[in-house]
Amino acid sequence: MRRDTGLIIALDETDAKRALEVARSVSDTVDAIKINWPLILSAGPNIITQMSEISDVICDLKVADIPNTVRLIVKEAVSRRASGVIVHAFTGEDSLREAVSAAGTAEIYAVTEMSHPGGEMFTAPHAEEMAEMGVRCGVAGFIAPATRPDRIRAVRSIAGDLKILSPGVGAQGGDASSAISAGADYVIVGRAVYGADDPASAARSIAKEIRPFL
Amino acid sequence: MRRDTGLIIALDETDAKRALEVARSVSDTVDAIKINWPLILSAGPNIITQMSEISDVICDLKVADIPNTVRLIVKEAVSRRASGVIVHAFTGEDSLREAVSAAGTAEIYAVTEMSHPGGEMFTAPHAEEMAEMGVRCGVAGFIAPATRPDRIRAVRSIAGDLKILSPGVGAQGGDASSAISAGADYVIVGRAVYGADDPASAARSIAKEIRPFL
Repeated sequence: MRRDTGLIIALDETDAKRALEVARSVSDTVDAIKINWPLILSAGPNIITQMSEISDVICDLKVADIPNTVRLIVKEAVSRRASGVIVHAFTGEDSLREAVSAAGTAEIYAVTEMSHPGGEMFTAPHAEEMAEMGVRCGVAGFIAPATRPDRIRAVRSIAGDLKILSPGVGAQGGDASSAISAGADYVIVGRAVYGADDPASAARSIAKEIRPFL
Repeated sequence: MRRDTGLIIALDETDAKRALEVARSVSDTVDAIKINWPLILSAGPNIITQMSEISDVICDLKVADIPNTVRLIVKEAVSRRASGVIVHAFTGEDSLREAVSAAGTAEIYAVTEMSHPGGEMFTAPHAEEMAEMGVRCGVAGFIAPATRPDRIRAVRSIAGDLKILSPGVGAQGGDASSAISAGADYVIVGRAVYGADDPASAARSIAKEIRPFL
């Protein structure tokens, strides 16, 4: 994935028409579009391919299964033109290795910790361990919350020069420049862009905020 | 979900035509059909509705996300006629509560522990804690590995009269009667049925093995 603006849009829409409209309007300003299961379940898996004609697509599938099922899910997403797939690390090393192997030249980003309150219960206590495992498994990068720059720094200290993608900017309270300063390569912005009256202009304004820190 | 035979088939096929054929051939013998993401990604989400016309459908989505995304995924699956949805417990209490609430009259089954080697790393050490949390959240039941009847007993001691569904019978080495004796209500069988030359006859033979223990 290129890094022109350091901005990824999380297109958490379930309406395919609206999602494609927003994608087209921001495609000049974002490095990738992240989509997830609700859109795929509502619009059908072909939405991955349609999005890939507009921008690089990261499928945020939070894959969390046994190795064989992980392989089938990642292969299917990549065959539909996903450039990257987000998978959970907590299902362990064999599942994560299988994701990396199934992805081929596409990129696997591992979730080591979730930023919602429930994420404190079982993911946060193992985040460092999971990041070390991710490095061993050859992931392309990690997801780390923009709402907690200290956690981005912790992942960066383990991740070396792997990529860090930080969700939670905008509506969830995270700040793009703080996230990038703390070590994120990309920030992921959802509602603040797709929910804006003018998504293209909202995206440009966040990209401008990031620019001095890249 | 009814319990006539205590048998659920895991239809881990990615070919929709073949999956529907197998589903029709075993529908008299199984209490439900479990399908997962690879089939949905390959055949499209309408496969959930098509399967629901043949049998009760459990969507094994291993949902593992923030509460809002969990809600959207579960709602979408239920609106397409899933009778039950399998979600991970490790994303914490808020996510699990949201799944139960979004499911309405459909059933949520929580994964507290995974049976592949990687499952030992981060899920198994928290399995009991997650099962207790599942009871608090009002899940309909739990998934516990037939390959390890001691783990079924451990979950049963926490789950009270909630349902326990046990995968891993057949190709993975688990034994249907041991799983039921240990406290499972249903066994989930995959390849040993859908991969058989005669899936209907394979299903009947496993149902017969379970019968004396129900």
